[in-house]
Amino acid sequence: MQWTKVLGLGLGAAALLGLGIILGHFAIPKKANSPAPSISAPQDLDLEILETVMGQLDAHRIRENLRELSREPHLASSPRDEDLVQLLLQRWKDPESGLDSAEAFTYEVLLSFPSQEQPNVVDIVGPTGDIIHSCHRTEENVTGEQGGPDVIQPYAAYAPSGNPQGLLVYANHGTEDDFKELQTQGIKLEGTIALTRYGGVGRGDKAVNAAKHGVAGVLVYTDPADINDGLSSPSETFPNSWYLPPSGVERGSYYKYFGDPLTPYLPAIPSSFRLDLANVSGFPPIPTQPIGFQDARDLLCNLNGTSAPTTWQGALGCHYRLGPGFRPDGNFSADSQVNVSVYNRLELRNSSNVLGIIRGAVEPDRYVLYGNHRDSWVHGAVDPSSGTAVLLELSRVLGTLLKKGTWRPRRSIVFASWGAEEFGLIGSTEFTEEFFNKLQERTVAYINVDIAVFANATLRVQGTPPVQSVVFSATKEIRSPGPGDLSIYDNWIRYFNRSSPVYGLVPSLGSLGAGSDYAPFIHFLGISSMDIAYTYDRSKTSARIYPTYHTAFDTFDYVDKFLDPGFSSHQAVARTAGSIILRLSDSFFLPLKVSDYSETLRSFLQAAQQDLGALLEQHSISLGPLVTAVEKFEAEAAALGQRISMLQKGSPDPLQVRMLNDQLMLLERSFLNPRAFPEERYYSHVLWAARTGSVATFPGLSNACARANDTASGSEAWAEVQRQLSIVVTALEGAAATLRPVADL
Amino acid sequence: MQWTKVLGLGLGAAALLGLGIILGHFAIPKKANSPAPSISAPQDLDLEILETVMGQLDAHRIRENLRELSREPHLASSPRDEDLVQLLLQRWKDPESGLDSAEAFTYEVLLSFPSQEQPNVVDIVGPTGDIIHSCHRTEENVTGEQGGPDVIQPYAAYAPSGNPQGLLVYANHGTEDDFKELQTQGIKLEGTIALTRYGGVGRGDKAVNAAKHGVAGVLVYTDPADINDGLSSPSETFPNSWYLPPSGVERGSYYKYFGDPLTPYLPAIPSSFRLDLANVSGFPPIPTQPIGFQDARDLLCNLNGTSAPTTWQGALGCHYRLGPGFRPDGNFSADSQVNVSVYNRLELRNSSNVLGIIRGAVEPDRYVLYGNHRDSWVHGAVDPSSGTAVLLELSRVLGTLLKKGTWRPRRSIVFASWGAEEFGLIGSTEFTEEFFNKLQERTVAYINVDIAVFANATLRVQGTPPVQSVVFSATKEIRSPGPGDLSIYDNWIRYFNRSSPVYGLVPSLGSLGAGSDYAPFIHFLGISSMDIAYTYDRSKTSARIYPTYHTAFDTFDYVDKFLDPGFSSHQAVARTAGSIILRLSDSFFLPLKVSDYSETLRSFLQAAQQDLGALLEQHSISLGPLVTAVEKFEAEAAALGQRISMLQKGSPDPLQVRMLNDQLMLLERSFLNPRAFPEERYYSHVLWAARTGSVATFPGLSNACARANDTASGSEAWAEVQRQLSIVVTALEGAAATLRPVADL
Repeated sequence: MQWTKVLGLGLGAAALLGLGIILGHFAIPKKANSPAPSISAPQDLDLEILETVMGQLDAHRIRENLRELSREPHLASSPRDEDLVQLLLQRWKDPESGLDSAEAFTYEVLLSFPSQEQPNVVDIVGPTGDIIHSCHRTEENVTGEQGGPDVIQPYAAYAPSGNPQGLLVYANHGTEDDFKELQTQGIKLEGTIALTRYGGVGRGDKAVNAAKHGVAGVLVYTDPADINDGLSSPSETFPNSWYLPPSGVERGSYYKYFGDPLTPYLPAIPSSFRLDLANVSGFPPIPTQPIGFQDARDLLCNLNGTSAPTTWQGALGCHYRLGPGFRPDGNFSADSQVNVSVYNRLELRNSSNVLGIIRGAVEPDRYVLYGNHRDSWVHGAVDPSSGTAVLLELSRVLGTLLKKGTWRPRRSIVFASWGAEEFGLIGSTEFTEEFFNKLQERTVAYINVDIAVFANATLRVQGTPPVQSVVFSATKEIRSPGPGDLSIYDNWIRYFNRSSPVYGLVPSLGSLGAGSDYAPFIHFLGISSMDIAYTYDRSKTSARIYPTYHTAFDTFDYVDKFLDPGFSSHQAVARTAGSIILRLSDSFFLPLKVSDYSETLRSFLQAAQQDLGALLEQHSISLGPLVTAVEKFEAEAAALGQRISMLQKGSPDPLQVRMLNDQLMLLERSFLNPRAFPEERYYSHVLWAARTGSVATFPGLSNACARANDTASGSEAWAEVQRQLSIVVTALEGAAATLRPVADL
Repeated sequence: MQWTKVLGLGLGAAALLGLGIILGHFAIPKKANSPAPSISAPQDLDLEILETVMGQLDAHRIRENLRELSREPHLASSPRDEDLVQLLLQRWKDPESGLDSAEAFTYEVLLSFPSQEQPNVVDIVGPTGDIIHSCHRTEENVTGEQGGPDVIQPYAAYAPSGNPQGLLVYANHGTEDDFKELQTQGIKLEGTIALTRYGGVGRGDKAVNAAKHGVAGVLVYTDPADINDGLSSPSETFPNSWYLPPSGVERGSYYKYFGDPLTPYLPAIPSSFRLDLANVSGFPPIPTQPIGFQDARDLLCNLNGTSAPTTWQGALGCHYRLGPGFRPDGNFSADSQVNVSVYNRLELRNSSNVLGIIRGAVEPDRYVLYGNHRDSWVHGAVDPSSGTAVLLELSRVLGTLLKKGTWRPRRSIVFASWGAEEFGLIGSTEFTEEFFNKLQERTVAYINVDIAVFANATLRVQGTPPVQSVVFSATKEIRSPGPGDLSIYDNWIRYFNRSSPVYGLVPSLGSLGAGSDYAPFIHFLGISSMDIAYTYDRSKTSARIYPTYHTAFDTFDYVDKFLDPGFSSHQAVARTAGSIILRLSDSFFLPLKVSDYSETLRSFLQAAQQDLGALLEQHSISLGPLVTAVEKFEAEAAALGQRISMLQKGSPDPLQVRMLNDQLMLLERSFLNPRAFPEERYYSHVLWAARTGSVATFPGLSNACARANDTASGSEAWAEVQRQLSIVVTALEGAAATLRPVADL
């Protein structure tokens, strides 16, 4: 009897032990002992934080920021520009709403200014040398803000000094074709003064083209047809409306390239090698001066000569003629000439960038870079302080969450306030030259908000394909300003849309040229970039740009009354940018959709086939390898997309996701080739480098074809076409190779 | 009584249950269900695996590999070269000892060959055109292996065809100074044939320098003084000793650059743009032919004219004279001339690289790249098959562990067998052009083993500073071949050492030029690289290189009998390379010690100050910014080293270590600047680009100083000196910036 009891007890004991073992193994979670959980635990975008940020971004605060920022002119390197550097540093070091750290980086850069002692003048001079008529030297002080010593006289930055005098001609936009037309009309251009209008070609190119034809000096004005929907009277223009008043003059840089002119490819620190002024290329070759349309009317409406072509006519209220010289029956004698006296000076000045950072909690070596330039021509309320006002509000909201301990982003967020952008994207370019490798290796994306609001109709985004999806995601979730209950996305798509073979109807993103500080990031460093703003309803205005652009009328009141009363569009831009920043900094999987490049490549390819195919065939150049390369890219990008989807379904390891994110982040770099365009400055991106033609296709290929097609070219020019084709093929194949599973050869 | 029993039973049951729970929780390891534990669990170098690999690498197998590899000549693109491609693929796809995958990549490259129908000849021709004397057209068949159709005739690859004939002169090494000396001696060089000896300057440069002085054709020979410690008789040379027999001729590429000549910067795939032959620069401008010293003796020892300078004398057994023409009292009449008839042909040929990969278990997107070229001039037992034999044994041992499931490296290991290296590092260069971005972003280091054993005295390593420490660590743990119980390290330090301010006496690493396939990796891609081999005891021989280099006498028996009987030096190289591979692929913290760059920078700086300081001061150029930049680098590198040490004491998160490792891996890239040397081909590394002077300092700076110091230079040349200085300063400052804590601005 004893042994059955013992047996029973034994069995029972064993059963209990076994049960305990099972319970202990499976039911009680093991406590991980090594790395701190917050470091390695996969974080993802916190929708509550996103919601909070969207709600915190305040239109009134943006308005107050703008009021302060645009209170005084803040030209690059001026005392007020320096004050704003301090303002930024103060805000970004604020213990309650500041960032982790902030610092100013100063460069010594070559800027250009009119002389304070001798203002630039444009006079009509009689045969005996007497001044018959003077154009205005400054803009009219209509609001009390256009006077004052800090309102820099209208001038063409980097135009050389000189006093050319000659008969006046009218040269439309001042393109090469425009000057050829004048020659065809039998007009002798040698020694003339050419009056041109803004638009059609870059500022500096007008002077370059003019000089090639022997023109001695150039004037540039803004035509009411281009800027004011034809309106021009004081009652129809600012301060009574949005439009440009008759004395308004657009300032601007007339330098051909971007970056500090003396230190190409080197940061403009004091010790860097500087070019001799004599060896600097890119400055306009002849004296140039911008004037207002009131002055332009006085000149142009008195010109003699043939009628200007229809497309050259504008809205000055008279019939435009070409010259040369004035009509005897007009206001000036036929032998009067125009004297353009420019006294600009080149000066080395200190210009600072201000950088502020929120360190990433998990991947601090991944940067989401957000930039806006700080310097203006005069008050710069729209350009750039609308963007600076948004920048300050964004950093305040994020900084507040940071300082409260509520949130820290996964990746680092770097805010940048660029200096001397107006002179040629100088601050941003010097920054990319100084920190080339560090930025190229670590920057997830660059977000630029220069002018935040051109007008208040709709969002407008320029960017490279990988950023399209995060912009869409962000804007679908934010309410559009204005009546109704549309999202920004749904409003946007009504103004800018395209038919995507993949997605159907979607908003269309523009491409990135060199209009603002994204240029060195996309073209020199190959970082996926975007530019965000609110803009016009093109069905309501044909204004080339907001009418007071670069004038002394770009003031706080202009924005407050006409551009964005209530500042809801500013707020919309802040929310859009803020949402994009958070998605890029906090999402576990980087929201860069590289497969969206396939559409662009396919579209470029088709355009190349249509536009260049026949010509290439004539020269026995086949686009076959390009077709193959595009297909390979499409396939690899699609396959990568699939692998990402699979991974997203499970609980992937942070290292695995890191490796994948590296592929996404670095894809844009694959399109960079510093040896592709040796005659260009900085441009190295084989898809987005400056294109001479209008067809949207591979720039190196189409530019080379255009050159080779010139009747004067020889076989070397066709060899260059082949080389450019190979460069693109190699880049696309190389890009595809980076998208393959990482351990596949 | 019942209730005490029940209580007792209950307590006992609870105890058992509790015990079971405890056992179940702690004693039984949890099986991870989501990511495989090996993925995120920090791995580190497994010393047992290292030990095993060291023990498995077998000298006999290396010997047998070599026997097979060198059995037949395997010139680039020949059928036997193709056979070896298949051999490699077979070995690397072997189910028991192969890799994860292997693939051949074929390029279409421009090679150069002598004509099979018309061999190149060098004749002495009498005044009536009769051939008085012919040099040998092939090497003597002393072992039975020098005959046969696959033994390519000695020739100068890429030398143009032609039949120049003229009086013979002796031009020493054929340097610019040598030809100037002949001019100073009053010798008319126009239309002559110049006999030069190997050494002193690159092969192709001899022809370039000669042509500049009007020379019509060039002969190149190997002097017994330079290769044989003066010995020259058949009994004293191979097959009776290590030395070069009298008929031996060094072949080689006479092309100036590296990479496929027709496709600079583009991969030589069929569709790539190719230069017109007329537009290819870098080929020797005049017919050139190498000859043996037996033939050279016949020519040189019969020359007329002045005595050659003492330093021009050699060991042919006669007093060298300069010519022009032969001594009347010699073997040939004074009016005889030398005719050099070259019938070389340029041909497009297919040449393959073979790539094999072991995928990393944790960080498959990090590549440890190990390469050796496969193609030879003739049997190539030393060059390159000694290295190929090592490659095969390394991949066998690692592949075996892989296939058994014993081990998988943390990072990926990529084995590469390069084609067409002998013609100008072609296979490796095309590979870097094709996969530029992928390689640059992911390659931890490149290890080159071309010739594994030049001689069996000591290890010899060339490399960039970051790899020094892993080479030291590896070699300290491996026994040196030979008697005694020294480590490879302790033997090495006796032959190559330097006094380091940081470490005291250590072995010295040489720097990387363009002598083998590491060149595109370090100069074009900026990847930390090294070249490993065993080499001579320089106190025992002054041979410029192992005597049968590039001749038909470089055979298996040569290695087996004279170079490394027993193959213990081959095994030592295999172990060294294997240990380095494992340390790079498996160590948690990458063993790249970036702070070791500080010594080099400091040394370059001091050399610049000493050698160039005064000259620069004369031109108001200050080295101050360079001093600051070096100091900044030193400080950041040291600080990073400290942070690494701190991290290594704890249990750091894999992501943290990944971020740090990225900084270490990418440091070398910071020194790359593709715009630094526009007139060079591929060279972009501001520390290691080709230097014209002998002082070890910053090449751009010292080259520019040398050019500027030339009496013919103007102020532009000094501007270039300043630019080069700024380039280095910017690179060092940029490098330092990448070493800062990653979220510091």
